[in-house]
Amino acid sequence: MKILIEREPLMASIQNVMKAISSKTTIPILSGIKFEANEQEVKLTGSNSDITIESVISREEDGIVNIHEIIPGQIVVQAKFLPEIIRKLPDNQIEIQVDDDMNINIRSGHAEFKLNGQDPEEYPQLPVLQTENSFDIQIDLLKMLIRQTNFAVSTSETRPILTGVHIKLDNNELGLVATDSHRLASRKITIDQVENLSFNNVVIPGKSLSELNKILEDTQDTLQISVTDNQILFRTKHLYFLSRLLDGNYPETSRLIPDQSKTVMKVNSKDLIQSIDRASLLAKDNRNNIVKLVTQGQQNIQITSHSPEIGQVEELLQTISIEGEEIKISFNAKYMIDALRAIDSEQVLINFTGAMRPFVIRPEEESEQILQLVTPVRTY
Amino acid sequence: MKILIEREPLMASIQNVMKAISSKTTIPILSGIKFEANEQEVKLTGSNSDITIESVISREEDGIVNIHEIIPGQIVVQAKFLPEIIRKLPDNQIEIQVDDDMNINIRSGHAEFKLNGQDPEEYPQLPVLQTENSFDIQIDLLKMLIRQTNFAVSTSETRPILTGVHIKLDNNELGLVATDSHRLASRKITIDQVENLSFNNVVIPGKSLSELNKILEDTQDTLQISVTDNQILFRTKHLYFLSRLLDGNYPETSRLIPDQSKTVMKVNSKDLIQSIDRASLLAKDNRNNIVKLVTQGQQNIQITSHSPEIGQVEELLQTISIEGEEIKISFNAKYMIDALRAIDSEQVLINFTGAMRPFVIRPEEESEQILQLVTPVRTY
Repeated sequence: MKILIEREPLMASIQNVMKAISSKTTIPILSGIKFEANEQEVKLTGSNSDITIESVISREEDGIVNIHEIIPGQIVVQAKFLPEIIRKLPDNQIEIQVDDDMNINIRSGHAEFKLNGQDPEEYPQLPVLQTENSFDIQIDLLKMLIRQTNFAVSTSETRPILTGVHIKLDNNELGLVATDSHRLASRKITIDQVENLSFNNVVIPGKSLSELNKILEDTQDTLQISVTDNQILFRTKHLYFLSRLLDGNYPETSRLIPDQSKTVMKVNSKDLIQSIDRASLLAKDNRNNIVKLVTQGQQNIQITSHSPEIGQVEELLQTISIEGEEIKISFNAKYMIDALRAIDSEQVLINFTGAMRPFVIRPEEESEQILQLVTPVRTY
Repeated sequence: MKILIEREPLMASIQNVMKAISSKTTIPILSGIKFEANEQEVKLTGSNSDITIESVISREEDGIVNIHEIIPGQIVVQAKFLPEIIRKLPDNQIEIQVDDDMNINIRSGHAEFKLNGQDPEEYPQLPVLQTENSFDIQIDLLKMLIRQTNFAVSTSETRPILTGVHIKLDNNELGLVATDSHRLASRKITIDQVENLSFNNVVIPGKSLSELNKILEDTQDTLQISVTDNQILFRTKHLYFLSRLLDGNYPETSRLIPDQSKTVMKVNSKDLIQSIDRASLLAKDNRNNIVKLVTQGQQNIQITSHSPEIGQVEELLQTISIEGEEIKISFNAKYMIDALRAIDSEQVLINFTGAMRPFVIRPEEESEQILQLVTPVRTY
């Protein structure tokens, strides 16, 4: 194998596939990046047990030459130092040459690296996905869906199924739900041209979605999603992102969401975030980061928290309206801030059904199909 | 005590004195910031066993009002959360009020923090320095002196005296030396109007100089330095920075510097840094980060390193000139890069006196009174 390639597209590809490579892998070959060169393109692959990422560099695209010379071949290169080596090479053109003994020679300007390659035949074969169950989605929309739900997955392995985001497609409606059993994030959107497609109980590991979100650029290009029994593939023109799915049945979450409420509060989201954020400064000194919210009449709320050692904080915040019963409620400040930030609306509606019942936060504009639920903490 | 103060100068002052506050202090009162308000100004003090920093906020300066209202008094405020609290307050004007029971009330907009204060009488009294042994130096010049020497202090406590920078003033010449016994950095400058002042064996802890360098802004204003037997004070208009000095005698270092050489190399510093930096990528995989330099004729040098697991790297670099004997020498890449960066000259002269003798790096322009010495490593 030999390629003469521009630094920039090579660097971008390496950085993409590196996101799948774990330094703690127990399979030695997976600590490397697989390079496959054919006449038209060079493909890089990185993988761990959960995620596989393939990134393709075309020889030429939109009149820009990425690769000046290709002699087809394959090799696996140690990933650990590769990004730094490529970044620090003196010249923008880089020659990578592999001999029959799998010695890799990387040359650029007056610098020459000789690296030990590994046998590409030992690299695990990737499953070929049936892509019949596929649908398209705009990338910036997908990124928003991930951002609005993925933070609520569980980080504990007590119930592994909760470390993923549940995805459901039915009647042209795509729904995402994440919960760690203390809070829940739910988001729905309408998808066009998927009349014949439906699935349920697809649970994508939260970590996979975080990495996918990092790799995808915020564009209006579309991406294809294909689902099988145990894997999901996200595909753009140059990128394949394959993740395993979590085993097991995702709990039925719709009944957790209260359908009535005793107190309805409409409030400016940014003001509320900032007040809770300040109160949380002292609350964080305790292990549990609890702040208290108390309604005062039909207009004001008081946000408080205290730390026995440091002191206490008290804020009086004017809402837009409070309807229904008075309420005193305590909750985890981080959960509340995460929920408000995910909704990303100027005004939010918060529906309480008592100090010990989960409360629901929605954007003021009903059209946005997003809902955040937070379970309060008993302090009274 | 009561002050009504603008956020920006308060924040800047807090951040300055925080640099002296250690979260691991064994003296509880030193985990706080001392506030002292008189009619004209508010002074903040932070301290640990090595450094004391005082920052003064004038009531009004250059027509800008920093403090709108002062009722004199003193208090010690827990430092841990204070920067975050001040930064996140809703309004740019902040009222800090202390009652007779040392309760601190911080109010801004609709937010109110009540913090537990500590008794300012318990705060250690700062020594009053005799400032007769004082001289002035331009701040940007002082920062450069620190940058060019301080990196070479020892980080090991085996010989505590080597964790500091040795400073000497004699005959209008100020000299700084730092060494960890593997490398040495030396810098001299001429100071005006200090005819009657001289000192030797003043050793400032490297950590103090790092913090001082962080606090000082890169301006051409002057700063006053005062030296006593066991302390050194750096004073600007608004800032007092007091550091203890290290006990013990600093070793005589001048005889370590070879006064002859067998090989003299003139080379572009940036090219050499980049070559060694690349070679170091693989060398770092070993514990010792060793690269090898070999002259090839009167013009070229080869830089190499290898890691048994990853591979090897080889660079051929053209110098400006090589005079004298051929040389093969190995050294710690980090030491060499630190030295070259500190010199900050387009071209450098490197004087070798054999593969096992320390070598000396100087800027090509002799006028710059800087010298870096690196001890090679035996590999042949």
